[in-house]
This record gives sequence, structure tokens and C-alpha cells, in this order.
Amino acid sequence: MEKKIERFINIVQDYLSNNATLKLQRLLNKIHTADVADVISHLEAEEGQKILNMLKPEVTAEVLNEVDSALAKELVQAMSPVRLSKMLDTMPPDDAADILQYLPEEDHLKVLAEMTEEEAEEVEELIQYDKDTAGGIMTTEFVSFHEDITVAGALEHLRKNIDAEASYYIYTTDKEDHLRGVVTLKELIKAGPDKKLKTVMISDIISVKPDSDQEYVANLVAKYDLLAIPVTDTSNRLLGIITVDDIIDVIREEATEDAYKSVGTTEDELLTKSSFNVAKIRLPWLITTLLGGLICVLVVSRFKFVLEQVIALAFFMPIIAAMGGNIGIQSSTIVVRGLATGIIDTKKIWKMLFREVRIGAIMGLACGTVVGTVGALWQRQLVLGLVLFVSMFMAIIVAAAIGAIIPLVFNKFNIDPAIATGPFVTTANDITGMLIYFSLALGLMKYLV
Amino acid sequence: MEKKIERFINIVQDYLSNNATLKLQRLLNKIHTADVADVISHLEAEEGQKILNMLKPEVTAEVLNEVDSALAKELVQAMSPVRLSKMLDTMPPDDAADILQYLPEEDHLKVLAEMTEEEAEEVEELIQYDKDTAGGIMTTEFVSFHEDITVAGALEHLRKNIDAEASYYIYTTDKEDHLRGVVTLKELIKAGPDKKLKTVMISDIISVKPDSDQEYVANLVAKYDLLAIPVTDTSNRLLGIITVDDIIDVIREEATEDAYKSVGTTEDELLTKSSFNVAKIRLPWLITTLLGGLICVLVVSRFKFVLEQVIALAFFMPIIAAMGGNIGIQSSTIVVRGLATGIIDTKKIWKMLFREVRIGAIMGLACGTVVGTVGALWQRQLVLGLVLFVSMFMAIIVAAAIGAIIPLVFNKFNIDPAIATGPFVTTANDITGMLIYFSLALGLMKYLV
Repeated sequence: MEKKIERFINIVQDYLSNNATLKLQRLLNKIHTADVADVISHLEAEEGQKILNMLKPEVTAEVLNEVDSALAKELVQAMSPVRLSKMLDTMPPDDAADILQYLPEEDHLKVLAEMTEEEAEEVEELIQYDKDTAGGIMTTEFVSFHEDITVAGALEHLRKNIDAEASYYIYTTDKEDHLRGVVTLKELIKAGPDKKLKTVMISDIISVKPDSDQEYVANLVAKYDLLAIPVTDTSNRLLGIITVDDIIDVIREEATEDAYKSVGTTEDELLTKSSFNVAKIRLPWLITTLLGGLICVLVVSRFKFVLEQVIALAFFMPIIAAMGGNIGIQSSTIVVRGLATGIIDTKKIWKMLFREVRIGAIMGLACGTVVGTVGALWQRQLVLGLVLFVSMFMAIIVAAAIGAIIPLVFNKFNIDPAIATGPFVTTANDITGMLIYFSLALGLMKYLV
Repeated sequence: MEKKIERFINIVQDYLSNNATLKLQRLLNKIHTADVADVISHLEAEEGQKILNMLKPEVTAEVLNEVDSALAKELVQAMSPVRLSKMLDTMPPDDAADILQYLPEEDHLKVLAEMTEEEAEEVEELIQYDKDTAGGIMTTEFVSFHEDITVAGALEHLRKNIDAEASYYIYTTDKEDHLRGVVTLKELIKAGPDKKLKTVMISDIISVKPDSDQEYVANLVAKYDLLAIPVTDTSNRLLGIITVDDIIDVIREEATEDAYKSVGTTEDELLTKSSFNVAKIRLPWLITTLLGGLICVLVVSRFKFVLEQVIALAFFMPIIAAMGGNIGIQSSTIVVRGLATGIIDTKKIWKMLFREVRIGAIMGLACGTVVGTVGALWQRQLVLGLVLFVSMFMAIIVAAAIGAIIPLVFNKFNIDPAIATGPFVTTANDITGMLIYFSLALGLMKYLV
């Protein structure tokens, strides 16, 4: 935590406990809304609520926008519809739509009814879009001019009413609102005042559709180093823009989402209060790995005879399974990140697979040697050492291959490969590891007993 | 892959195989540099090299900036020092410094000597900074004016020489170059032309030091929705700025870094050609988990007597270990992401821990019931079912707790918690799982045989 925030928290808590409301309000007015959000995140729920109630509607709005969504949901649900609609009126419509979505759908109308008509309409329009799409993150507050107006005219307009959140890109349209080009504010200042916008604009413009996936949009913005990207409908009419600050949120969100997905849960669980409901989110996937585990149990039970003869084989079961799992997760993580960042493409699949197998072979040799030697010396049985060495070596190579193949196959079939970096791969490798280990032991049985 | 890129690749490969150099050059001049980079990433190394040689130095520079670092390194190392220095001269100094770092240090001087003096000096200055710090990602191309000049004066200057990469924020300084404030280009346009900058600037400015960690910088930019952030020395002199497009790269990089770290490797491995060297990067951590695995082996061997009596216990070892590992990884992932995004702070540690344990208890009940029932029915032994149920339940609760605690402890001691989301936690839970399972079996021994 920043030192500054820590200091603020202490002062705020001090004021709160002394009911020094005036002092508190004066302090809150002075500090950056992002910092107020930070302070509220570190307070107890009721304290945060109290602070929020002291703020002006427009400041409340900004603060809610900055706190994490679990907390925002909680705070919004505790607000009265009247206060909420007053606040939403002051917000950019995209943010207002996001906030409104923290309420159950049946309450939307109640709040919208209290808002000014124009704002309510814009919010209603935005709220239909899925929140993971371009439509869900775009704002309808942007600057656009007809392509025929002059540079001087545009600048004059801007001087008078430049409120739009992002006005570094000025979009140009034709009579029917079709997107025609973009002029950066920088270029506008440099351009001759009498020139028409259409002579200075860039017309080779990158845009997205409202139903474009937000990750795709983020990749475009990152690739072309944009500060904003326009959203157009199927007939190329300008609907809104997405600004780079929202893109940053998307990129962070997607990274978190991938991490969550890899262990079979979703970010929703942070919005979920009851442990029972969180368990419900995590269980389906856990039960799947449990079924995989039962297959593994079945495999081992087939070798009961071998185990009965050489009980020491049981000791080493966990390490064979674990190392296979570890190497599998390494491979799958490399491949999944490679796919996410675009380093790996479909043409390089075989190259990637062989790379992982080669690396696996080297690591298998190293780990096999350690375990084989320990096993042979400790149990004073050379053949056991050999079984351990060979099966560790083989299990690791197979694990490396499986770890690389599963995400590539998932990707091929348009399943998010992120779910393959976790226990999914581990479970697969548990089974193959046990099969290799006990098959080998069975083969060398007569030298083992 | 975008359809557009696929089409470009086909055309480029066609032109290349027909040696249609002129046509190819005409095409390359027409398409966006980010797209050229994309195309090169999908070609074979020599093809990419050929394309790169056809481009003008300034375009080459932009392309190198857009391809992933493994490829950029390869391409840069294949360029002649003269061509390289010509190219670096056209680049913003921060990008030039990044490119130069793909060469071994002993070759830096050779290239710098061929560059124009002014540019070489700036690059030399930037290259000293660690690449993961603010200094390593800042550019020295920024717009700053003395705080006493007028709005009209500033605009006039901008009109004439607005080349700087990012000119949406105009920084103001005093006589000694101390950072005093910032004016956005938007505000500059709106402000009265005769006003002095110091009367329109925001003086409560957020800045970082050159040795600030890039992740910290990214968090500030994300929190305050900035388009750029200034870097100042200890006496508050303006050294450079970091632009939002570079921040986006940092955020993506850090997400990848965390994913890699969690499986005991680093992004460096993508820059490493030989499988042997990649194995060397991954092995230290793998050997650590191998030692953990050997402890697990030792634990199981202590229960040899129990295993000999009830061989069916061996069948279920992998599933007890695996489920503990899976739940541990769920908890640790939730906690690690929470710490990275700032949702969890040090004051909420206990809350988080109890949350995971509660969720673990519910999931333990579910998984324990399944395994216990299967075990009891399949092996026709009620007590085995009981052992499986209780030990699965307990192993999962302990795993949930360990998964939450390890990253919190790491964080406390300033070790990156990301390394705790992978096999580290799994190994710990393998050991505790086996201990619980066999201790319980030992306790109920007389009912089992």
C-alpha cells in the first residue's frame, strides 16, 4: 500500500470515530477520487458507506468506478434509488450502465425512471450489450464532426464544449453519421486553419463492432498503440468509442480471468458472499478432476498383484505422479501464455510440441537420475532404481507432451486453453504416470521380488 | 489470427517465392507497421530477415518494436552495425535503448559510435537503467515548457514542432527544470491565450523515480487513468515520461511473468534457443519440488506396515494427493490474484484465510462423500470408506488453508507470491495429504483388516 493511502486511512478513521464530519468532508474534497476509492476499499463496509454518503453525487460516481467490483456492488445495493439515479445522471453513460448492472434487473426501471430522460435513454441503450463486448465497455461521449468542417471550426467547437472524456481523437463522419476518419488533436493544432477535416484526417481507420469480444478489442488497441478505438454498427455508423483506460482494465481483468479459469473458478466468486455459493462455482470442475482421479485409482488397483509383491513401489507413487504433473503444468503454461500473447500461432504447433518434449527429456533424465539413485541406494535394490529412473524419465516426457498438446487441441476447438493450465493437465498426467510406472514394474517383476 | 493478416502473409510469401521485390516493397509501404510486424512473426526467420531489409530504417525500427522480443533479438543480431545504427537514429531513444540491449554488451559501443552524437548520448543514458524500472521504459521525448510562458506561446511552439511521441500532456518546469505541473492539450486549447501556463496547470502531479518498479508505475497509471506519467530525479527534475502504450506492454508482460513464475520458469526461456539451456532455467525449481516429493516418499514409507495390511489404501493415494493439490491451487490462485490486483490487503488476511477454509470444508464434504462411497462399495468395506471420507475432507481443508497461507506469508516477506500458485503448494499438500490419510488408517487399523 502507498504510504499516502495509509496516512489517509488513519486520519479518516480518526475523524469517523470522533464524528468530525466537517473536517472529514474537507479532507475528502481535497484528495484525488482514486485515493478516496483506495481508502474506502480498506475500511469496513459501514465506514465506507458513511464516507460515500458524504460525497457529492459526481464524486460518488467516480469513486464507485474505481473500487473493485465486489465492493462497488455492495455499496450500490445499499444506496437509495433516488440518490443512485442522481448519481448516475452525472456519470458518463458507459460507467452509469456498469453501475446499474450491480442491481438486480427488476430494479433497473425504478432507477432509470428517476434519471433525466436523455441520460436514461443512453444508459438503457448501453445496458443491452454484454459486458464483455465492445458495446459493454464503449462510451457514447465522444467528439465527432462532419468531415467538411474546417480545422478552425473544429477547434472553435472544441474550445466551447470539450467535455467528452476522450477528446484526443476527433472522429469525422459524413451526413449519415458514417465513420469516415480520425484526426488527432495534435494534428488538428498543426493543420492549416482553413483546411477541411477530410483533407487532414486518417481515413484508414481501425474500428470494432459492438459485439466484438473485449479481449480482441484490447489486442487491437495494444497492437496499434491507440488511445481510443471507435465502435461502429454494421453500416459503419459511429456508435461510441472505447478509451485506453478502459482497455487497461480489460487487460487486467482478462489476466485475472485466465488465472481463475485455470483452477476452475470465475471472478464471480469474489462477488459471492456465501461460502456455499462459492463452492457451487468451484465444484463442477473439481468433481471432473475427481472423476479423473477415480480413473487413476482404477488403474493402480489393476496392479494390486505387483504392489503386493513389492510394497516399496507404493512409496514412490506420489513422486512419479507429482513430477509428471509439475512438468505438464510447465509445458501447458508456456503454451497457453504463448497462445494468449500471440507468440505461438497455429503454424508453429509442431515446433512447440517438439521443443517441450526435448526439454522434458533433459529434465526427465535429471529427475529420473535423482529418484532412481535414491531408490536404488535406499531400498538396496538396483532394479527398483532402474524402474524408477526409466518410469520417471518416460512419465516426464509424456507429461511434457500432454501439457503442450491439451491447450493446443482446446484452442483448435475454440475452447479457452486457459482451463488447461491447471489440474486438468495434472489429472491426465497422474493417470499416464501411474500406467507407465506400474507397467514397467510388472515387466521387470521377476527381477524385483 | 485476423483474416487481413492471413491474406497479407499469403501475398507476401507469393511475392517472395517469385522474387517480386518491387511489388513486395509497394505492398509493405502501404500496410500498417504493426501489420508488417505481424506478418514477419508468421514467416520463417530468413523470410522475415529479407522483408526487414526491404524496409526503410524508420519503418524497420517500428516493426522491431512491435514483434515479440524473442524474434526482435534474432532479427537485430542478424543486422549489420551500420544498418542498425542508422535505424536506431530514427527511433525514440527509449525504443532504441531497448533494441540495443538485444546485442551483447561488448557490441554496444560499436553501434553507438556510428550513431549521431546527440541520439547516442540519450540512448547511452537510458541504457543504464534496469529494464524493469521506470527509467528502463521512459522516453526522453516529451513536451515541456517554462511555467511562465503563455497559452498562446505554448500552442505556437506546439504547432511548429510537435514531434514528441506523446504530446497530450504538456509538462511545465521552472528555470532549473524542476517539474512544476501539467496541462493537458485539451485544457490548453480551452484556456485563454494570454494566461500563463502556471495559472492553468495542475500542480498536484503524480510522478515516479527512475528506479521505481514498472509494476508500481503501471498500477499508478491504471489507478489514475493517465495517458502518461513523468519520471523525475531526486531533486524533482524532469528526466522523461512513460506513455500509456508502454504501460499496456508492462501489464501484459507482468501477467505473463507471473504465469511463468508460478511454474518455476521465466520469460527468458523464450529467448533461449537450446533445449538444454531452457532445462537449466526450469530445473532448479523442479529439483526443489523433487526434494519435496522425496519427503512425501519418506512419509509414505513410514506406513509400510499399514500398506502391507491393507493394499487397497495404495489405490487411493493418488486421488487424495491430487484433490488436496487441486484445492490448494484454487486457494492460492485466488489469494495471489487478489494480492496482485490489490483486492486483498494485509488487513484482510484472516478474513481471506477463513473464507478459503469454509469453502474448503464444503468442497471437502462433497469430494469426501464421493470417494468414501466409491471406496466403501467397491472394496465392500465400510471402514475404508470412512477413512477415505474423513481423510479427503481433512486433506482438502488443510490444503485450502495452506494454499491461502503460503502466498500470504511470501507476500509478508516480500517474496513474489506468484511462485506459490504452482507446484510449490501442490508439493506441500501432497505431504500433508499422505500424512493425514495414513495416520487415520493407522488409527483405524484394527477395523480395516
